[in-house]
Amino acid sequence: MNLSCSEFKPGRFFLGSFPFGKDLITSVEDFCKKASIRMAVFSVIGSVSSVTVGCYDQKQQVHVISREKAPFEIISCTGNVSIKKGNPFVHAHIVLSDEKDKIIGGHLFSETIIFAGEINLQELKGKPIERAYDYKTGLMLWNLF
Amino acid sequence: MNLSCSEFKPGRFFLGSFPFGKDLITSVEDFCKKASIRMAVFSVIGSVSSVTVGCYDQKQQVHVISREKAPFEIISCTGNVSIKKGNPFVHAHIVLSDEKDKIIGGHLFSETIIFAGEINLQELKGKPIERAYDYKTGLMLWNLF
Amino acid sequence: MNLSCSEFKPGRFFLGSFPFGKDLITSVEDFCKKASIRMAVFSVIGSVSSVTVGCYDQKQQVHVISREKAPFEIISCTGNVSIKKGNPFVHAHIVLSDEKDKIIGGHLFSETIIFAGEINLQELKGKPIERAYDYKTGLMLWNLF
Repeated sequence: MNLSCSEFKPGRFFLGSFPFGKDLITSVEDFCKKASIRMAVFSVIGSVSSVTVGCYDQKQQVHVISREKAPFEIISCTGNVSIKKGNPFVHAHIVLSDEKDKIIGGHLFSETIIFAGEINLQELKGKPIERAYDYKTGLMLWNLF
Repeated sequence: MNLSCSEFKPGRFFLGSFPFGKDLITSVEDFCKKASIRMAVFSVIGSVSSVTVGCYDQKQQVHVISREKAPFEIISCTGNVSIKKGNPFVHAHIVLSDEKDKIIGGHLFSETIIFAGEINLQELKGKPIERAYDYKTGLMLWNLF
Repeated sequence: MNLSCSEFKPGRFFLGSFPFGKDLITSVEDFCKKASIRMAVFSVIGSVSSVTVGCYDQKQQVHVISREKAPFEIISCTGNVSIKKGNPFVHAHIVLSDEKDKIIGGHLFSETIIFAGEINLQELKGKPIERAYDYKTGLMLWNLF
């Protein structure tokens, strides 16, 4: 089996600034709903006052969550927007660092509270991809196969 | 000496899903061959069941390889496709995390086996860049100077 | 308050190779000045012979800087170019790894000296965003609100 791909045309391109004290994922999903964005890719840099990340346990098929109520730099955050149950849904992974050279990362969850952050988001036009349950992995994957 | 750049026009834009159990680099290179993609930039998030990364020893000019046969999240993976010996060739760097907050990363090598993964790939149209041996670094760099 | 966004049109797209031994940020800013680029997003992979990163102390509102005079792989580096005091200004975050599986990262500062590096840079056309002092965070943020 091969990489299964769907082609899109570039839509609008946005640079944006996150509001202080708001949740990262919620901010992006709310913006997409208001701007009628169905599909997109994006990248974020900035810093947070608290963060929630997960690592997927591939055997037990559950996310192991860890939450840090402390300041961190977002040193990488890349993700996409596609459709889950009819609404724009963010899937993003994140890497963070702190003053003591601690590095953490994983699948991005709420709550992750922005201190300051900049996003670049490329809207994609074309047939939206829906997420569907995948029995092999236990994840909500893109329904492309 | 300055940053040496070559200009490209955007080609097709793809979102894709990796097949379970396949090698990351091979999947991207096979897709590029089938879709006649010569140049591209891409980003991947997802998870792997095993991973191979390298760090370049700048003095001895060899890659020090480390392989982990364990599940990890791909928390960042960015790269490009250009031409090496006539074929589309992937150059990518990757960051990974596990359940115990271990973080690893480096130059992405095969084998790196996908558990689940999503790619966004921007094809680039223009004169393809070929890789050539660079005596100063010992690396196969873009032949732009 | 919501994510505050500004829309841009894609300009030129560049792939580039960094000169050996030069500073990462200076190389990108010099290229932007010469090519009359006011706004852009970019991503870099490669390796460095020394690196300077910072983590923002959100209470004391100062960057805590750490400098490593040693080789590292750039395993992620994403950023943007916007206007600060009339000139194109780079804001980027970076993640690095070494041979002993040490991972560091943070806000990218000079000096960070390239051993070998590849950039992809998307110029953005539209009303340039200026950075302005933000009293709440103590940072020079995009003046979008």
